[in-house]
Amino acid sequence: MQIGIYPGSFDPITNGHIDIIERSAKLVDKLIVAVLSNPQKKPLFTIDERIYMIKESVSHLENIEIDSFNGLLIDFAKLKNAEVIVKGLRAVSDFEYELQMALMNKKLNNNIETIFIMTSSRYSYLSSSIVKEIASFGGCVGDLVPPIVGAKLRRKFTISK
Amino acid sequence: MQIGIYPGSFDPITNGHIDIIERSAKLVDKLIVAVLSNPQKKPLFTIDERIYMIKESVSHLENIEIDSFNGLLIDFAKLKNAEVIVKGLRAVSDFEYELQMALMNKKLNNNIETIFIMTSSRYSYLSSSIVKEIASFGGCVGDLVPPIVGAKLRRKFTISK
Amino acid sequence: MQIGIYPGSFDPITNGHIDIIERSAKLVDKLIVAVLSNPQKKPLFTIDERIYMIKESVSHLENIEIDSFNGLLIDFAKLKNAEVIVKGLRAVSDFEYELQMALMNKKLNNNIETIFIMTSSRYSYLSSSIVKEIASFGGCVGDLVPPIVGAKLRRKFTISK
Amino acid sequence: MQIGIYPGSFDPITNGHIDIIERSAKLVDKLIVAVLSNPQKKPLFTIDERIYMIKESVSHLENIEIDSFNGLLIDFAKLKNAEVIVKGLRAVSDFEYELQMALMNKKLNNNIETIFIMTSSRYSYLSSSIVKEIASFGGCVGDLVPPIVGAKLRRKFTISK
Amino acid sequence: MQIGIYPGSFDPITNGHIDIIERSAKLVDKLIVAVLSNPQKKPLFTIDERIYMIKESVSHLENIEIDSFNGLLIDFAKLKNAEVIVKGLRAVSDFEYELQMALMNKKLNNNIETIFIMTSSRYSYLSSSIVKEIASFGGCVGDLVPPIVGAKLRRKFTISK
Amino acid sequence: MQIGIYPGSFDPITNGHIDIIERSAKLVDKLIVAVLSNPQKKPLFTIDERIYMIKESVSHLENIEIDSFNGLLIDFAKLKNAEVIVKGLRAVSDFEYELQMALMNKKLNNNIETIFIMTSSRYSYLSSSIVKEIASFGGCVGDLVPPIVGAKLRRKFTISK
Repeated sequence: MQIGIYPGSFDPITNGHIDIIERSAKLVDKLIVAVLSNPQKKPLFTIDERIYMIKESVSHLENIEIDSFNGLLIDFAKLKNAEVIVKGLRAVSDFEYELQMALMNKKLNNNIETIFIMTSSRYSYLSSSIVKEIASFGGCVGDLVPPIVGAKLRRKFTISK
Repeated sequence: MQIGIYPGSFDPITNGHIDIIERSAKLVDKLIVAVLSNPQKKPLFTIDERIYMIKESVSHLENIEIDSFNGLLIDFAKLKNAEVIVKGLRAVSDFEYELQMALMNKKLNNNIETIFIMTSSRYSYLSSSIVKEIASFGGCVGDLVPPIVGAKLRRKFTISK
Repeated sequence: MQIGIYPGSFDPITNGHIDIIERSAKLVDKLIVAVLSNPQKKPLFTIDERIYMIKESVSHLENIEIDSFNGLLIDFAKLKNAEVIVKGLRAVSDFEYELQMALMNKKLNNNIETIFIMTSSRYSYLSSSIVKEIASFGGCVGDLVPPIVGAKLRRKFTISK
Repeated sequence: MQIGIYPGSFDPITNGHIDIIERSAKLVDKLIVAVLSNPQKKPLFTIDERIYMIKESVSHLENIEIDSFNGLLIDFAKLKNAEVIVKGLRAVSDFEYELQMALMNKKLNNNIETIFIMTSSRYSYLSSSIVKEIASFGGCVGDLVPPIVGAKLRRKFTISK
Repeated sequence: MQIGIYPGSFDPITNGHIDIIERSAKLVDKLIVAVLSNPQKKPLFTIDERIYMIKESVSHLENIEIDSFNGLLIDFAKLKNAEVIVKGLRAVSDFEYELQMALMNKKLNNNIETIFIMTSSRYSYLSSSIVKEIASFGGCVGDLVPPIVGAKLRRKFTISK
Repeated sequence: MQIGIYPGSFDPITNGHIDIIERSAKLVDKLIVAVLSNPQKKPLFTIDERIYMIKESVSHLENIEIDSFNGLLIDFAKLKNAEVIVKGLRAVSDFEYELQMALMNKKLNNNIETIFIMTSSRYSYLSSSIVKEIASFGGCVGDLVPPIVGAKLRRKFTISK
């Protein structure tokens, strides 16, 4: 049984992430969506909020597990018996960083392979940061994120005003 | 059963290709190495020579099939019931071209997914063209290609002199 | 009255080109679609065929003129009293080449400005070459080019078989 | 009447910005230089100082308006009846970020077009950050910024010592 | 006598840095490894610790001097009578930043030349940041840094827990 | 005594090449400008014409030798006792190709180092191909090449008409 890991901050999950999840879920027997818990990055949403939003957004898929981790991705992958790390690529700047990380992870554990999927062109401009920026100024993010995320963002930025 | 396709000109196969084949053969049940037959490109080796050199070089792997195709990759993939196309990525220029091809193939057939694997850093400078250029000037390609390819290259360039 | 020039080979015109034409036609009083006549490149379609297909495809726009040129773009622009050259950008490789051309044209004639428009993400993978490749293998290009171009491509590749 | 917006932090304005302003002022009837007010970025100069330095530096141009904004650029553009956003491009890293922003802005408001102008090669290395870094160590920025900015920078870094 | 400068943060020195030092030491009569003292960047190691680790790691080379500087690199180079600045290049993102810095330094002092050396492919993924991240989670960095740096990193992250 | 090699097609030499030659001649005791003799590329000028134009253009420099080679650069460098290969970098596309060549040459001969110099920003758009294209259409190349090259280009393209 082949297990894959799709790691990220998911602060919050976007339609671009969901596209990658749907497509990579077909490639493995189980896909673990792994939320990085990095307190230094000052996320907008807590780990629990982020996991909740992912859960709501991918409930139509059967072979998904959602988990969080801190520390090295490669250690978490080993713990979970995952053989494959899945990453989405949008742009050249993504590519260079991900190439560096994939080579380093290969060096740290030669048994775990990183595979890349190109983000669909209609999501090529999309990132969690840009979604938060638009939402913070009251812009409409309805086409960019699942409904649950849109609702959470509106509440977050109404309260913070 | 998941079938993958690794397409290329393989004119000739290099150690960089073999690295990608070994690693992606673990990700699928069967990997079809698909040699592109493009007469306009004036290859150094015939399709039969290229297939023979691949066969010799990957005989240690069990789930490999070697075939040739012309026409659209996506049509060949469908014919072979493959759900996954595998490509290696070395550099930014690879990335942009492959991004374009992956998005186009996705548009032509939404059921076939392209996945990318980063070439190992020790092969990042390696290409079939550079191997042919070195061999044509009598340089040593022993570290760059399998033994059978080295032998074939020496004979090719001795004859042509 | 501001005149713009949108130069290209248009061999053949694609939906990506039309998107750029529609958007840049709003920015100038008159937009000249300028077909480069470069016999060395061995185009699939003659200049007349290319002009005809453009004419059919942009007949819904009022401020378009279609013309052909050879020689330096900057000389043709001066002849036509154009102050603006319009180019579409898709990818980093486009960017570097176009940056070089824009700087060189600026040096040759400081009064003519080159402006760039980003290709819509849904056409980011599209090029005349890829359209010709797909059509040559009998693939469907209905979503990629205007109907007249699709028809011409089918005839071209049926005859050539 | 066509209105363009040239947005930026302008902390402070450089000769590279002025080159873009002079060239794009010829392309539109009115060009609004729009200073982004982003308190989180901890600018060196206040909004008022930045506007004052721009005003002094572009007084030779007639169709310039200077304003500041916070929030989404696309909302400010609509408020000002601007149909065109002007951006300068220097390098590949600029290109990728600006491509993302242009596609996102297009999605948020399809009536506003972003056009790009390549920065003159003699300013390709120039940025507000590098100017501030040089000035902070007492280096000479006379060729890089207008006289008023040079004077303000000297005062700023003398006081801060 | 030709003097070169190899500047950096070296927080801490990695095997990639040492590869560049060994190779560039052959190109000049004396190579000054210049540690940038930038208190705002909150380094993990103090200037003294960083200098000590470099000293231990390059003791097999004879023509090396180790020093620290703050302020403009170009001023430090002049003070040291250096005519050459040496930089390592790994990736496209390095390239663009270094191109900008080299052009700016050339403008500030036309007598000092910047030369670039490509990082060996086996270190192309290596950076001080990635080393610190791995060490902070208890990962093994034995292949990535000299022994003295490995020891210091272990102590640092044990204490901080 | 340190010997450097600056290889290229120089078909013809441009002001950008001369800038690199002038700057790198200061870095080595002797600089060999090595003209690549590649008959397959169908050059505009013969090897002898290219060598003559270089000779005329760099006569103000004392430590220059001009030579031609075919075969592997690394073999020619060894033959000439050169320890350093000098290359100019203009753009990201240059960078990737040159990175590949430098790593390959390092692999073929570990004793020869490739160093890179960034092309001055005022020549960043300049290449032999673009010079030939402009000259072929009767455009003015006076600012782009040495006088001798301008004269030769005019004669070449007058004769060919």
